[in-house]
Amino acid sequence: MSGNTFGKLFTVTTFGESHGEALGAIVDGCPPGVALEASDLQHDLDRRRPGTSRHTTQRREPDQVRILSGVFEGVTTGTPIGLLIENTDQRSKDYSKIKDQFRPAHADYTYHHKYGIRDYRGGGRSSARETAMRVAAGAIARKFLASQGIRVRGYMSQLGPIDIAFKQWEAVDTNPFFCPDPDKLPELEAFMDQLRRDQDSVGARITVVADGVPVGLGEPVFDRLDADLAHALMSINAVKGVEIGDGFASVAQRGSEHRDEMTPQGFLSNHAGGVLGGISSGQPLIAHLALKPTSSITQPGRSIDVHGEAVEVVTKGRHDPCVGIRATPIAEAMMALTLMDHYLRHRAQNADVEVSTPRLG
Amino acid sequence: MSGNTFGKLFTVTTFGESHGEALGAIVDGCPPGVALEASDLQHDLDRRRPGTSRHTTQRREPDQVRILSGVFEGVTTGTPIGLLIENTDQRSKDYSKIKDQFRPAHADYTYHHKYGIRDYRGGGRSSARETAMRVAAGAIARKFLASQGIRVRGYMSQLGPIDIAFKQWEAVDTNPFFCPDPDKLPELEAFMDQLRRDQDSVGARITVVADGVPVGLGEPVFDRLDADLAHALMSINAVKGVEIGDGFASVAQRGSEHRDEMTPQGFLSNHAGGVLGGISSGQPLIAHLALKPTSSITQPGRSIDVHGEAVEVVTKGRHDPCVGIRATPIAEAMMALTLMDHYLRHRAQNADVEVSTPRLG
Amino acid sequence: MSGNTFGKLFTVTTFGESHGEALGAIVDGCPPGVALEASDLQHDLDRRRPGTSRHTTQRREPDQVRILSGVFEGVTTGTPIGLLIENTDQRSKDYSKIKDQFRPAHADYTYHHKYGIRDYRGGGRSSARETAMRVAAGAIARKFLASQGIRVRGYMSQLGPIDIAFKQWEAVDTNPFFCPDPDKLPELEAFMDQLRRDQDSVGARITVVADGVPVGLGEPVFDRLDADLAHALMSINAVKGVEIGDGFASVAQRGSEHRDEMTPQGFLSNHAGGVLGGISSGQPLIAHLALKPTSSITQPGRSIDVHGEAVEVVTKGRHDPCVGIRATPIAEAMMALTLMDHYLRHRAQNADVEVSTPRLG
Amino acid sequence: MSGNTFGKLFTVTTFGESHGEALGAIVDGCPPGVALEASDLQHDLDRRRPGTSRHTTQRREPDQVRILSGVFEGVTTGTPIGLLIENTDQRSKDYSKIKDQFRPAHADYTYHHKYGIRDYRGGGRSSARETAMRVAAGAIARKFLASQGIRVRGYMSQLGPIDIAFKQWEAVDTNPFFCPDPDKLPELEAFMDQLRRDQDSVGARITVVADGVPVGLGEPVFDRLDADLAHALMSINAVKGVEIGDGFASVAQRGSEHRDEMTPQGFLSNHAGGVLGGISSGQPLIAHLALKPTSSITQPGRSIDVHGEAVEVVTKGRHDPCVGIRATPIAEAMMALTLMDHYLRHRAQNADVEVSTPRLG
Repeated sequence: MSGNTFGKLFTVTTFGESHGEALGAIVDGCPPGVALEASDLQHDLDRRRPGTSRHTTQRREPDQVRILSGVFEGVTTGTPIGLLIENTDQRSKDYSKIKDQFRPAHADYTYHHKYGIRDYRGGGRSSARETAMRVAAGAIARKFLASQGIRVRGYMSQLGPIDIAFKQWEAVDTNPFFCPDPDKLPELEAFMDQLRRDQDSVGARITVVADGVPVGLGEPVFDRLDADLAHALMSINAVKGVEIGDGFASVAQRGSEHRDEMTPQGFLSNHAGGVLGGISSGQPLIAHLALKPTSSITQPGRSIDVHGEAVEVVTKGRHDPCVGIRATPIAEAMMALTLMDHYLRHRAQNADVEVSTPRLG
Repeated sequence: MSGNTFGKLFTVTTFGESHGEALGAIVDGCPPGVALEASDLQHDLDRRRPGTSRHTTQRREPDQVRILSGVFEGVTTGTPIGLLIENTDQRSKDYSKIKDQFRPAHADYTYHHKYGIRDYRGGGRSSARETAMRVAAGAIARKFLASQGIRVRGYMSQLGPIDIAFKQWEAVDTNPFFCPDPDKLPELEAFMDQLRRDQDSVGARITVVADGVPVGLGEPVFDRLDADLAHALMSINAVKGVEIGDGFASVAQRGSEHRDEMTPQGFLSNHAGGVLGGISSGQPLIAHLALKPTSSITQPGRSIDVHGEAVEVVTKGRHDPCVGIRATPIAEAMMALTLMDHYLRHRAQNADVEVSTPRLG
Repeated sequence: MSGNTFGKLFTVTTFGESHGEALGAIVDGCPPGVALEASDLQHDLDRRRPGTSRHTTQRREPDQVRILSGVFEGVTTGTPIGLLIENTDQRSKDYSKIKDQFRPAHADYTYHHKYGIRDYRGGGRSSARETAMRVAAGAIARKFLASQGIRVRGYMSQLGPIDIAFKQWEAVDTNPFFCPDPDKLPELEAFMDQLRRDQDSVGARITVVADGVPVGLGEPVFDRLDADLAHALMSINAVKGVEIGDGFASVAQRGSEHRDEMTPQGFLSNHAGGVLGGISSGQPLIAHLALKPTSSITQPGRSIDVHGEAVEVVTKGRHDPCVGIRATPIAEAMMALTLMDHYLRHRAQNADVEVSTPRLG
Repeated sequence: MSGNTFGKLFTVTTFGESHGEALGAIVDGCPPGVALEASDLQHDLDRRRPGTSRHTTQRREPDQVRILSGVFEGVTTGTPIGLLIENTDQRSKDYSKIKDQFRPAHADYTYHHKYGIRDYRGGGRSSARETAMRVAAGAIARKFLASQGIRVRGYMSQLGPIDIAFKQWEAVDTNPFFCPDPDKLPELEAFMDQLRRDQDSVGARITVVADGVPVGLGEPVFDRLDADLAHALMSINAVKGVEIGDGFASVAQRGSEHRDEMTPQGFLSNHAGGVLGGISSGQPLIAHLALKPTSSITQPGRSIDVHGEAVEVVTKGRHDPCVGIRATPIAEAMMALTLMDHYLRHRAQNADVEVSTPRLG
């Protein structure tokens, strides 16, 4: 409850700094009997891993994860699962210059004032490197959810000013952008190449969708599924906005347009994004998130140092020009963790509920 | 932890159905010594109360709150504060017709499947009536925060298709829309009058701002201030989107534009909305939320009943044509509760921290 | 999480001071579909109620409980259950004299220093009156547990120096001591009568037993069933010790004696008290608790006042000469709440577990 | 919240099985600025370590702990502290014979039924080996508490039938029993030598004391300091009873004897054990715990196997004949963790409280 734990029944607690010895997590509450091995986690970690294209940071981390407990003879035992990734590529020298400076739009200033001390190497705890552990933990949730017919997938729906319409799931994992429209790739690549030449960065919008979600996940009134999902997604580094279903477009809609009518054959639309009254409706669960442009750019920026003096900061290092590019697996992980937690919570209270009313197709 | 509690150190647990006997809340963790009386809560409750203009539901609830514990001789004692509002205007007959039907875009369908049983009178627990308790609890947080120099205020920034630019705080409480621009009122009123004639409803966008927030509130990595705020705001009925600072506009921004540079005199901009790395920066904390159009409209809608048969639903009752109109006090309350909780959490861990570095003005 | 909530999935949050307006509780997480009415709670409340014999305080509180939410048409809906007992017999004048004094062995001194302010009327929040709400909430848990074949019962096993051997459950509710041996009653009554003449008080030992507990309740490693039960029972006013099974007698036992051997027909003994490795074994769950003598006695005691000056305190009021006498329903309630919470927690994680191994009879 | 996390603000989450790859913990919520290095933890780990005398198990584990995060340049940063101990002495062959058998008085039977699967090597998660991580985490708490003038110490107060009166703290760490009376050592050693010849085991009673505890730690009503301490101590493997202060002896005491009178010079006694109304009084905090005899003895015992068939179990392996002997550092750790958590919780709510009333010396 000190901020580094996610979930209430299926809990993920993480530790680790960008340039510390290791990253780790404890996943507690996993049902027993789930077939699990490190390669299940590695698959998603590799999707998030930097250095796989020229459009992401060239920092090279193998991100090799070990499962230290909670799995016996290939299946989960119900006891906590310890995960560990040793840090191997820690070039601390890159960061020593800015030890006493606060990089603009970074957590340097706020961590310094909150704690009085901070690990300034690569952002320390505030680095997006921490999300590796979310992806690893999320892979465990995804493995269980898959056994219940629930699948979580995401894609990039906007890169800077470029809108990306959804075309096909098959395309998403075939390019470094998680772009669902292969025809858009040349435009995205050209944009990114120009961005690097401009020594600048840009934001992105990611869409995540869960199919196969049963009716009934989510709790009234504070722990609604959409509220917990908003928490989960907004907790990802650089995220500045979250939408469920039609999101902000709902503001200008009329009730007669927005309401998803039902027939015995199913819902006629999904403006709600799969949640009614905070509880899953059985329709696809849809969320969008906005990521701000990377704060670390090589253009000089005005800032102050720990003495309150004006300084000019130039962030060298190796940084993603668009943190959103690698955010898709992270967003998927956070949606999976949210669903997993609510799956267990729902079962705790409502395992006995039987309803004769048919569920919509 | 079963969904009806908000917060970790300053906790609010609520109960009550729209047409049940009473609504109540327990506010736990309030510091002792805060001057508090029922009228402090009543003020905010009256701002949220329905029936104060022709643009909101005509249901009349005095919403008279009682403080049952935790306050002694006019100040809080540190023990839990029990709050109670007895329901007085329960016209159950209005709702009996739809007992076996699922109103489109309501929680009827999802509650039915989750619990197997539901209090169908006025939406039961899923009714926005529950938010009265949030407002009452929020008023306690606001009282404490005010003593620390923190002020939370909100306004309507969009009604359906009509954008509303911020003009002045003074205007907000002088009209039923919480509109900060008096010149916009005729347009808003005309729009709403036409909407009622159309028997339709519309969404709204609300902006909430906290001034005087100290540097340092928020926890890494999951319980970031912005993540918890997103949770808080998305947990309000009908909310479909939450933005911090520039929100979705950040997607198309470049890093050189978005990053808020610092000088010894202060930040040069506030695209971040007062949060860096999940921790408050001392700048105004800014959030926007999107509310969908009211689902209850008198136009007939297609739906199904508990037997899975097709039905046509007409929602009579007395409903807000725009739930967003009364949402401003609720959003303020949720931001206040979020800040209050993080204020205490921060103090728990970091009460000893002293930093010689000057804080930005 | 500020101290007034019990449980993780089946949560009970209480409020109220001894001489405040009302006592209340919110019970969250109750499964839907449990038949419940106020009289179910009243039965246990009446067993705890003071003033039913000459051996307990003569303060008269009808302790009439109202269910304000969460129950619809006679069954629980899965939403939070609001409970309320209005205080009616508040003789504040009895307590005004000791406003600035700290009664020895009371919470006066500690509350004063913790909060800087305290409701001095009748002990305020520290009064055992708060336990009425635990009993009411416990009755809900007991109703559900009974439907699963789990029954929680308790009895007095020692009054001051008088040991009470267990004889029969039938006797327990037929006397004001919750004594399971009718032949002991004359001795107990004579002892209590002498105690009153001595203007003194005495401690008691209570034993609580749950039958029908399934194998598997309890979580490793901190939230063991016995650890959570110890927490639950030690949280009752005046409790100074908790034992599971053989408790402190285990210290002098040898392993060959203590270990409960198993045969296909069942366990051969129950020294463990129904818990192995923190998880219920299916044997009766057995706990003992020690209650200290009532602190409020009419013999003068040395103490200090808020100015640090020596004072002589005489506690008049109306007090139980043995708080343990009315503690049996409270201990039963706390064991029931503990089991209820773990029942739901177990189900969340392990609902799918199937074991072909037979369970011991 | 799935059972492997202790605390609410200062949280310890552990993972690891007796014969798995490693043990680990995440300590979250530690205030920043605490000087900390691995040797601080190692000191307490070495006190708990097996194989240091002939009276404990001969299993040899160096128990070398690594700090993987949360400490920078020798001080804590306020971010989570990752701890790791790699398992090195895993003789799995010792355990393979009892794979399908349930050892009497072990968690084999209950884990099997709860999870359907269990790591049978050395007890897996139910092994007391897990407590190494508690000791390591407790050392962090003790370091912080020491800076606030709070010291936690423990000793063995009974070994089997042999009572041990407290003599001097200096003696405790000079013998393998944590015995505070050097004159008792020959008797203890002779008793243990005979016990080994008898191929049997025995229980123990441990006493833990905290000095320097400020007034005010603990929350009403469920999270009392004593209730949380009971939870903490009962969660240690093999513990069957917990007492605060006079504990079960209070039952036979009279109020005039038990109540701790106060004078301006201080309390006149400490029957309460340092807690009044669940809140620390400033007196020494005193608790006693009862540990059952080790279940693993080489005498054959009757049991069943996973098919429900009768078997005779002989536990070979290397086991402590009295688990209580090594329990003192564990009990100290759990008391320290409890105090640490409440220290932060108290500060969160009551940091502003100022009382002119003098505190007792």
